[in-house]
Amino acid sequence: MKSVNLKRLAEELNLSVATVSRALNDRYDISQPTKDRVRELANKLNYEPNPYASGLRNQKSRTIGVVIPEVANHFFSLAINGIEEVARANDYHVLIYLTHEDYEREVSVARLLAGGRVEGVMISVASGSRDYAHLDSLQERGIPLVFFDRVHEELATAKVTTNDYESSYQATRHLLDNGCRAIAHLTLSESLSIGKRRLQGYVDALKAAGIPYDEELVVHALANKAQDIQTIQELLLKRPDIDGFFASIESLAMYTYEACRNLGLVIPTDIKVIGFSNLEMASLLDPPLTTITQPAYAIGKEAATILFRAITKNALITATQSLELKSELIVRGSTRASVDMVAAKAHQQRS
Amino acid sequence: MKSVNLKRLAEELNLSVATVSRALNDRYDISQPTKDRVRELANKLNYEPNPYASGLRNQKSRTIGVVIPEVANHFFSLAINGIEEVARANDYHVLIYLTHEDYEREVSVARLLAGGRVEGVMISVASGSRDYAHLDSLQERGIPLVFFDRVHEELATAKVTTNDYESSYQATRHLLDNGCRAIAHLTLSESLSIGKRRLQGYVDALKAAGIPYDEELVVHALANKAQDIQTIQELLLKRPDIDGFFASIESLAMYTYEACRNLGLVIPTDIKVIGFSNLEMASLLDPPLTTITQPAYAIGKEAATILFRAITKNALITATQSLELKSELIVRGSTRASVDMVAAKAHQQRS
Repeated sequence: MKSVNLKRLAEELNLSVATVSRALNDRYDISQPTKDRVRELANKLNYEPNPYASGLRNQKSRTIGVVIPEVANHFFSLAINGIEEVARANDYHVLIYLTHEDYEREVSVARLLAGGRVEGVMISVASGSRDYAHLDSLQERGIPLVFFDRVHEELATAKVTTNDYESSYQATRHLLDNGCRAIAHLTLSESLSIGKRRLQGYVDALKAAGIPYDEELVVHALANKAQDIQTIQELLLKRPDIDGFFASIESLAMYTYEACRNLGLVIPTDIKVIGFSNLEMASLLDPPLTTITQPAYAIGKEAATILFRAITKNALITATQSLELKSELIVRGSTRASVDMVAAKAHQQRS
Repeated sequence: MKSVNLKRLAEELNLSVATVSRALNDRYDISQPTKDRVRELANKLNYEPNPYASGLRNQKSRTIGVVIPEVANHFFSLAINGIEEVARANDYHVLIYLTHEDYEREVSVARLLAGGRVEGVMISVASGSRDYAHLDSLQERGIPLVFFDRVHEELATAKVTTNDYESSYQATRHLLDNGCRAIAHLTLSESLSIGKRRLQGYVDALKAAGIPYDEELVVHALANKAQDIQTIQELLLKRPDIDGFFASIESLAMYTYEACRNLGLVIPTDIKVIGFSNLEMASLLDPPLTTITQPAYAIGKEAATILFRAITKNALITATQSLELKSELIVRGSTRASVDMVAAKAHQQRS
């Protein structure tokens, strides 16, 4: 295949190489008909600019990088869809990098991106993320950065998050209302900002109900399925008084289902379960899972909008552009109050 | 932050820039102690080569591109994990590109990759993929390409797939054995190689059981949740004789659950359901879903191994390197034979 370069396009169109280049870059000093002619031929001949050469000249890769912990979580797959919608509207490509919740890999990806292959970065940090120097250095190199969902509060840039504290308070309150008294909280990491806020919402809801905080009921999961199920089972065996589980991420709610089944415990009769989740099939589970559902698509879209505003206007992103969107409690069978409880409430109301 | 370049490393180490560069590139003519000294300082100072500059000189980005239709499907999230394991062992980065089942986007991504920003490409083609000229041109530019799961048979390169025909035959046979006589087949695309093979396995299993092929029972889904559920409901209303569903992708099995529930049909009593799926929570559904489960992680790993052999040895990939791995039928509640059926079988065996 004969390679198609600017020179060949220029020859075929009887234009100068400079004119062809400026037409392809949509410069103001080239007329629309010329731009159209050049682009038509470029498309026809499958012309692809050399990204290294053009990257060197104008530092434009028309690409953004999205760094996330995992793809199996439905929150992230929906957020990516929101991000891609905005990127497509701006005619940019999206590169996805996975950290697998590992700090070292997050640092390595940040270094790679700092080398200049993307024009902007969106990140939801790994649960093992200990500091943010690696992200700071992206900004120092002039690469705009936006956090979504999992953030480093201290870094001066925009963060798009949800009302984690309120949602967590509400979830715990819902379990209490439906009769739970010993509620376990499953969390990925307390070093994460969302981990902290969700824990605080849980603690405060218990306190408001006159239930003291019990450290033994807060479990840090390890992001390994077999081990996490084992941990949950051991907790259930050690503390037979547990009657509710509040999982701060989707997979931990699923592992609670498996642990209960392994031990012959029935949801919601013996144990009630609620989890942060964007699982489309939550309603198809046995029993259907009560969820705190984040507006994942909107989070991705809003965060990308902030990033592209910075890229296209060559403007700075400030922390004041941060947004907080609202999550939603969707009540399903996994937290249903027992018949006794309902009867007792009815009795209470009558008397 | 003062930028760290080769010159600065050379100054601090009292070496020439050429020596530092050759040490970082692991050239044979530099001693191991020198390489160690250079790398130690490079790590300490957070040195990151400019990918554009080094890309221009030696065409090495130490990056591979993985092109997939979507991330919400568990097959792909597991395959990515397998790919990343091999990439990490080779000290390469993985970029993930999504096509959202759209042919135009696949072409656009292929063009971008043809520009040389990756050293190799792995692809599972979009359901709308009509031809393979865009992939052919990657190979023509010397960028090795490996297909996994969804392939273009005609392209001369390695393909890592599963035994789709046999799995599909087995799934249909399983529904027949458990009493189904009018089995609907939900497929994403017949133009895809796997779509064709899965359809053929279904048709042949019916034929072997003396059941003629009924075109009306083969439904092409549109990859849009609301529309797909609507299509399934309309089919169920039009054809009340349907007693089984065989879904060729995970989401279509889930949509069948929703459609049945919307119409008040009970799985497995009224309708039995089986689907190709890598859903970890298949066993937690109501009822648990019978699946044909592909070895997704192994597929990703084997395909990446073939790609890296080509990259590191600068060798060609040929179609003879293709592999076929085996999928597994996992029987669960969604295809359970009715009590009558079991009684009839027992009766048959006794007489």
